[in-house]
Amino acid sequence: MFSPLIKELIESLRCLPGVGPRSAQKMALHLLERDFQGADKLADALREAVDKVGRCSSCRTLTEEAECQICQDPERDAKRLCIVETPADVVALEAAGSFGGRYFVLLGHLSPIDGIGPEELGLDRLETLVSHNEVEEVIIATNSTVEGEATSHYIAEKLKQMNVKVSRIAHGVPMGGELEYVDGNTLALALEGRKTL
Amino acid sequence: MFSPLIKELIESLRCLPGVGPRSAQKMALHLLERDFQGADKLADALREAVDKVGRCSSCRTLTEEAECQICQDPERDAKRLCIVETPADVVALEAAGSFGGRYFVLLGHLSPIDGIGPEELGLDRLETLVSHNEVEEVIIATNSTVEGEATSHYIAEKLKQMNVKVSRIAHGVPMGGELEYVDGNTLALALEGRKTL
Ligand SMILES: [Zn+2]
Ligand SMILES: [Zn+2]
Repeated sequence: MFSPLIKELIESLRCLPGVGPRSAQKMALHLLERDFQGADKLADALREAVDKVGRCSSCRTLTEEAECQICQDPERDAKRLCIVETPADVVALEAAGSFGGRYFVLLGHLSPIDGIGPEELGLDRLETLVSHNEVEEVIIATNSTVEGEATSHYIAEKLKQMNVKVSRIAHGVPMGGELEYVDGNTLALALEGRKTL
Repeated sequence: MFSPLIKELIESLRCLPGVGPRSAQKMALHLLERDFQGADKLADALREAVDKVGRCSSCRTLTEEAECQICQDPERDAKRLCIVETPADVVALEAAGSFGGRYFVLLGHLSPIDGIGPEELGLDRLETLVSHNEVEEVIIATNSTVEGEATSHYIAEKLKQMNVKVSRIAHGVPMGGELEYVDGNTLALALEGRKTL
């Protein structure tokens, strides 16, 4: 009984994480009944982001520039490279403020069942990056979930063949927890207590 | 530390009901990392809806047509007019399937504190509609909340001066409940047990 465009909007909102049919309907009507300006702004922001945001050519994080701000920053220590799963992890680590090196963002973790292997995580580029640059230490900061640990193990084995120090972020982060929800102090401790693998 | 376009997207997602900074960030990254196609579809759907959806010239419900499907339908009984707060209420009543008349959608309820008075709810148009057409009965189906009851009372007083039968949907719907969440049977009973005001 909703008109076609409203139905389409409700259906499209379902792609948001945690949004079922009921909340999608609530969101669509809220936007059209009560927050037209917000809806207009969101439509623009989404279109802009979809059209322009891609991956940093160096660290693979999400950015609308060819290279992200961190990779462009000559002050960052290129000798240390921290590997994380998502851009949100970069944000969490930057907020902790104790790491001055660079990042490599996997945009996921190994998950054969979803077809995510080493190629999808850009591990060939990671190896090129490590072999061509003056990287002395790679700190693996994937989540301490089962998948994150497996991914860490895989990457560590690969890199240990390459004359580079490989360390794993300390388990100051609670087991089973996701990096982006850990507070800055714990993250700083976890970085400090990292162990050579 | 997110790029400007990603920050803007996160900020814009906050206009969705119940979405705080954390979920907005999760939604933005989900769309850009994992569901680009969904994000693209949502951007289109939102732009289309914002540009084209307006109000039905007759009943004020949300539609991209000049007149909504129900108002265009010659089979609907123009003698009975059901007043509801939102388009979602029309959907709920239609799903109950026991009403064959037409609707008038307030798109809200009286709320002086938010600057929503009779004009914002289109009550002048409602009076015109009732006086110019062959409406014999107006069924008020606003929510059984404090605001819905006050709105019902106000409308009933206005219309009773106009030689039209005014009834209120029966309180089969639980007090304090919102119409759109009530099951079809209860809604059917509530319509059936309506009392003349
Ligand atoms: Zn980068
Ligand atoms: Zn209509």
